[in-house]
Amino acid sequence: MPQFTYTRRVRFSDTDVAGIVHFANFYRFMEEAEHEYFRSLGLKIMDHRPDGTAVGWPRVRASCTFESPAFYDDLIDVDVSVVRVGVRSLTLGYRFRRGHKSLAHGEVKTVFCNCAAGGKFESVDIPPEIANKFVESPADSHK
Amino acid sequence: MPQFTYTRRVRFSDTDVAGIVHFANFYRFMEEAEHEYFRSLGLKIMDHRPDGTAVGWPRVRASCTFESPAFYDDLIDVDVSVVRVGVRSLTLGYRFRRGHKSLAHGEVKTVFCNCAAGGKFESVDIPPEIANKFVESPADSHK
Amino acid sequence: MPQFTYTRRVRFSDTDVAGIVHFANFYRFMEEAEHEYFRSLGLKIMDHRPDGTAVGWPRVRASCTFESPAFYDDLIDVDVSVVRVGVRSLTLGYRFRRGHKSLAHGEVKTVFCNCAAGGKFESVDIPPEIANKFVESPADSHK
Amino acid sequence: MPQFTYTRRVRFSDTDVAGIVHFANFYRFMEEAEHEYFRSLGLKIMDHRPDGTAVGWPRVRASCTFESPAFYDDLIDVDVSVVRVGVRSLTLGYRFRRGHKSLAHGEVKTVFCNCAAGGKFESVDIPPEIANKFVESPADSHK
Repeated sequence: MPQFTYTRRVRFSDTDVAGIVHFANFYRFMEEAEHEYFRSLGLKIMDHRPDGTAVGWPRVRASCTFESPAFYDDLIDVDVSVVRVGVRSLTLGYRFRRGHKSLAHGEVKTVFCNCAAGGKFESVDIPPEIANKFVESPADSHK
Repeated sequence: MPQFTYTRRVRFSDTDVAGIVHFANFYRFMEEAEHEYFRSLGLKIMDHRPDGTAVGWPRVRASCTFESPAFYDDLIDVDVSVVRVGVRSLTLGYRFRRGHKSLAHGEVKTVFCNCAAGGKFESVDIPPEIANKFVESPADSHK
Repeated sequence: MPQFTYTRRVRFSDTDVAGIVHFANFYRFMEEAEHEYFRSLGLKIMDHRPDGTAVGWPRVRASCTFESPAFYDDLIDVDVSVVRVGVRSLTLGYRFRRGHKSLAHGEVKTVFCNCAAGGKFESVDIPPEIANKFVESPADSHK
Repeated sequence: MPQFTYTRRVRFSDTDVAGIVHFANFYRFMEEAEHEYFRSLGLKIMDHRPDGTAVGWPRVRASCTFESPAFYDDLIDVDVSVVRVGVRSLTLGYRFRRGHKSLAHGEVKTVFCNCAAGGKFESVDIPPEIANKFVESPADSHK
């Protein structure tokens, strides 16, 4: 059962000459769904600790399986579920649907990091007040 | 050993506010490398049979593991190798490098299809004259 | 006075290494606002005549003036106004705001066309039932 | 006469469902041409002064006129010319061609700025050693 559903209109610039949504854009849509899921939990994907240190969630692995094309102007639902909460990592699962029709499913593994300028990331433990917000789904269907 | 290497300059519009290449763009870079690899073999990703039927290679699964960030203006090498040639599918592996430094690796599985207007795809056997151009790498290091 | 306002969340993939929305994305946002404005009028940007001919609105000129940066996660309003309704062309104006703060303004001129496969466009007169839906703004502030 | 020509392969992800290059991507291509032109002059679009201050060239206005579509896999030439060198601004002109066929032309006005974190830009005079590298074209044909 998804913890959250994000609804997204497919835009003209999301499509390609094959007449369908370009596959790379599904990864952008998963990220948008992730950020709205974070917002729904009162969290931010880019934040700062009380001491001013920037923290974030760089992606370490992302995969997507494409079942059926999505088209210009489709209204798509992206169901988000929690696949795994690790000590330093969070893996979310995504199911893309147009109504009841499943279009794709994917997973993105992210790692909680202190972020310094110039793209320097150091993985650190997820603070309990953040980790506790994520509950693994008992029967995840996004695999 | 890669069958082909594609070299790509990272562009300003490939980056994001984290100061690095946005992860979804690695999938676009894999596709660019695939198309140049096809070109090197005398093949096209979008083609027509003698009877005029359009044929192509829709993506069915893509994954990427991100090891180290890529930055604006980097000159990146993308090594392409053949992971598996199936009856109707082709899986290519990709290794991203900046010089000797490995940045990411991924795989994209595509299926050979007859393509009709409106994003209608029907998978069909890869013709032998195409399939024979792809030789699986004995020791693929992209897994 | 705008005829329509489109509200858009700035996404992570809309930004670049300068920490702001990449300028090319303002053109995508103008197009999204245009399509939602068309929808609000009961029109489609890609449509078919009763005889099956595809019709559309290819862009012939687009410009944008950037006043102040937009940032990740901003909620942006795009005001749409009608600059000019020609015999075959339609020019819409756009004003980007974050609250009362003006961020950018632009114009896109499109031409009504019969569209054939392979990107072949033939400009034709806008049918009166479509042209009549657009009313030029008496005092357009997007110039 | 162009000062510089940048050659660019049109990629699958540059196209849209109309079967042509999406218009917003012409602005990305102009930026790529600009950066390669800067490189040819020994300049960088993002640089630092001897005292460490970051400097750059935020865009203040961009326009493009679209004459004829560009298609997937086209090899496109982008001619760059210098329209105007101001005290703090630089306006470059761009002509898109597929062989001798003109596809589009545009202009981008940029302003030389000190850049602080968080997208804070302060316009400053272009140092003479940079300004002197740009020579206005006597008969600019990009207008």
